[in-house]
Amino acid sequence: MVTKAEHTAPKGGMAAACAGLVNRDRLWHRHMEMAKIGAIPGNGVNRQALTREDIAARELLTSWARARGFAIGMDRIGNLFIRRQGRDPTAAPILTGSHMDSQPSGGRFDGIYGVLAGLEVLEALEDAGASTARPVEAVAWTNEEGGRFAPGAMGSMVFSGARRLEECLDIVDSSQVVLKDALAETLAAMPDAEERSFNFPIAAYIEAHIEQGPRLEQSGLPIGIVTGIQGSRWFEVQVTGESAHAGTTPLAARRDALQDAIAIVQALNEAMHDETDTVRFTVGRFEVTPNSPNSIAGSVFFTIDLRHPQASTLAELGDAVEGICQGAARRCGVRVKETFNRPPCVFEPRIVGMLEESAGSLDLPHMKMPSGAFHDALFLNDVCPTGMIFVPCENGISHNPAENATPDDLAAGARVLAMSVFKLANG
Amino acid sequence: MVTKAEHTAPKGGMAAACAGLVNRDRLWHRHMEMAKIGAIPGNGVNRQALTREDIAARELLTSWARARGFAIGMDRIGNLFIRRQGRDPTAAPILTGSHMDSQPSGGRFDGIYGVLAGLEVLEALEDAGASTARPVEAVAWTNEEGGRFAPGAMGSMVFSGARRLEECLDIVDSSQVVLKDALAETLAAMPDAEERSFNFPIAAYIEAHIEQGPRLEQSGLPIGIVTGIQGSRWFEVQVTGESAHAGTTPLAARRDALQDAIAIVQALNEAMHDETDTVRFTVGRFEVTPNSPNSIAGSVFFTIDLRHPQASTLAELGDAVEGICQGAARRCGVRVKETFNRPPCVFEPRIVGMLEESAGSLDLPHMKMPSGAFHDALFLNDVCPTGMIFVPCENGISHNPAENATPDDLAAGARVLAMSVFKLANG
Repeated sequence: MVTKAEHTAPKGGMAAACAGLVNRDRLWHRHMEMAKIGAIPGNGVNRQALTREDIAARELLTSWARARGFAIGMDRIGNLFIRRQGRDPTAAPILTGSHMDSQPSGGRFDGIYGVLAGLEVLEALEDAGASTARPVEAVAWTNEEGGRFAPGAMGSMVFSGARRLEECLDIVDSSQVVLKDALAETLAAMPDAEERSFNFPIAAYIEAHIEQGPRLEQSGLPIGIVTGIQGSRWFEVQVTGESAHAGTTPLAARRDALQDAIAIVQALNEAMHDETDTVRFTVGRFEVTPNSPNSIAGSVFFTIDLRHPQASTLAELGDAVEGICQGAARRCGVRVKETFNRPPCVFEPRIVGMLEESAGSLDLPHMKMPSGAFHDALFLNDVCPTGMIFVPCENGISHNPAENATPDDLAAGARVLAMSVFKLANG
Repeated sequence: MVTKAEHTAPKGGMAAACAGLVNRDRLWHRHMEMAKIGAIPGNGVNRQALTREDIAARELLTSWARARGFAIGMDRIGNLFIRRQGRDPTAAPILTGSHMDSQPSGGRFDGIYGVLAGLEVLEALEDAGASTARPVEAVAWTNEEGGRFAPGAMGSMVFSGARRLEECLDIVDSSQVVLKDALAETLAAMPDAEERSFNFPIAAYIEAHIEQGPRLEQSGLPIGIVTGIQGSRWFEVQVTGESAHAGTTPLAARRDALQDAIAIVQALNEAMHDETDTVRFTVGRFEVTPNSPNSIAGSVFFTIDLRHPQASTLAELGDAVEGICQGAARRCGVRVKETFNRPPCVFEPRIVGMLEESAGSLDLPHMKMPSGAFHDALFLNDVCPTGMIFVPCENGISHNPAENATPDDLAAGARVLAMSVFKLANG
């Protein structure tokens, strides 16, 4: 077959050209620019969902996108779409992206890498003059972290239908800000974005992300091809006792919510103990009221994050949580609420195989691996063929200002992404 | 001895007259007016030290005092003095008072009762046309609670020389407000108050307070005569681990500050266990960073409040705290800082006897008892003869919006106070 122009070059050749035009320094520079928004000591960022910092990040991202002539769209939960048109504008697009919000004490790469790698792919396609049958879109999902407004992955859940928008609007953060108000500010900040619907047809979704664990670094490999995501269940536990004076109230007469909460966490520790160290059990948020040195705690609120790669084990352990909490409380009332329950997912082998093939043809050493963290890809997998690419992060540290990655590894991941997206958009 | 005028009436008679002119309804009404400042749900107040609410309470108090022609003074830590002049203006005054600041989730009587009872005594003396040899002053000590700026009893400590003003100025609250800035606002709000020195000579100090425990109510007695105050030691514990991703980090690889803090509290619980239930051991403030459901806790800060009526036991238990904390930590670093150490105090028997005598001559049933809580009287006892009067509070509950007391009991305590203060001011 004779080609008339670059945009009709043989697919393998143009796919490799797109991968080759991923610009390592541009990609790195953009990470450093983004890291200035909500910067905190120790190289970290605090850019929580639907804050002023989140809005600033959206504005910076779209300024880069507009400079290349890409179209901007947003849906009603603030998911942000950057579109490079395809030959058939009505075809279901290929989506690639992740999220821009961070943990309160987060790093410079978690989430934002997938968004910037997505934009980098669009720009590499543009720089290559590549034509694709389908549109290609970079996406930034709203509130993946869930640290401010629980649960996380809210944008991708609402988009994919796993949760209704209306169920999210009244959620409050720890300062009593209501989500709908914060969301309204975010939407109003970008009035010229085209309104996008939820759950529009998608041909495939590929998300690039730092590994957030140590395996790739320990194996000396730049690329991980993700086979699936372990399941997660989240709970909120409210322990209600009675506040009283620390100096006068005998211990036998106390209803100390902090002491009961501690007894509950200890009971959960025992029940979740696992010789193989596969169970992930975390109490990450723990809040005491009135939180004064000489007042007995009247109430404690804490969260449970429980994960496991096997559906049956996750179901069994999660179902035991409420009984353990009730059984371990001594003098206080206990209320347990499950806020999130997501079984493990397995990505489509066709997508996994295609990502492996891209890494192989770019001579990038890689391995297949499951994801310990959940990602927006977990929910996209419900509505379209989905896959993920991991790159190493230093010492496996994430959700921490010390989170780090190298420009070379970030670029390698974006190259695998560019080649794969080009293939999918023409496949 | 023949008397020429009411103000030279026989001391017993005029002392009884002053007690009789304590106005139950005025005293109750003022509690209810004060309770509007910083009111919180459930009948409570949040009127923490050196806040706008504290300033508003000072303004309301001094408006009542000025209406009766009493002089207003303030020292450099904001201790507020309301003076009714004596026949010898240079004589050391009799002081009576307490504090106006509350716990973050406090009640309507803790502290403010002693201040309002003090003002009520001045007014009863005025209403009786009573003349006293010494001046009588009602005092409101700054920051007794210590919930915002630790440690508590700050005003009375600085006044009495137990702590230097300069040691307090750089203390920060949990919102990073520096004490000196909050103090400057408080001082500036009352520019026409006469400047008072620290530690001016005082002939005696009597403090009225709700019991903050159940004994008087259970005994059916309106009056407690306090014999002394148990000792207190306060500690701050900082546990430093490493924040990481809750989904990816194996439990064996974690340095989870929340789990180590819980192990430390459990070890302290065991070490402080006491069959007689005399030890008061409380962890009241407990703060987790970053405090996000899916981030492992990087650090925990918590406080220890330890009290005991015996000096030797308090010393032994308090000295063991740091070793227990260090020994119980598993993978995190631990730093323990003692912020407060005050041995038990015993009030002068002459004052205790005189207060008993007043209660007896007013036919008010009473008992002698120690104080479980510390009070500003603890520090005044260092510099002058000191005593305290307790009145019952409902179910012994304090440091809680549900804190309650009856108009009759509050007035009874103020009557014992009025009689005693009159005697002391002429004795």
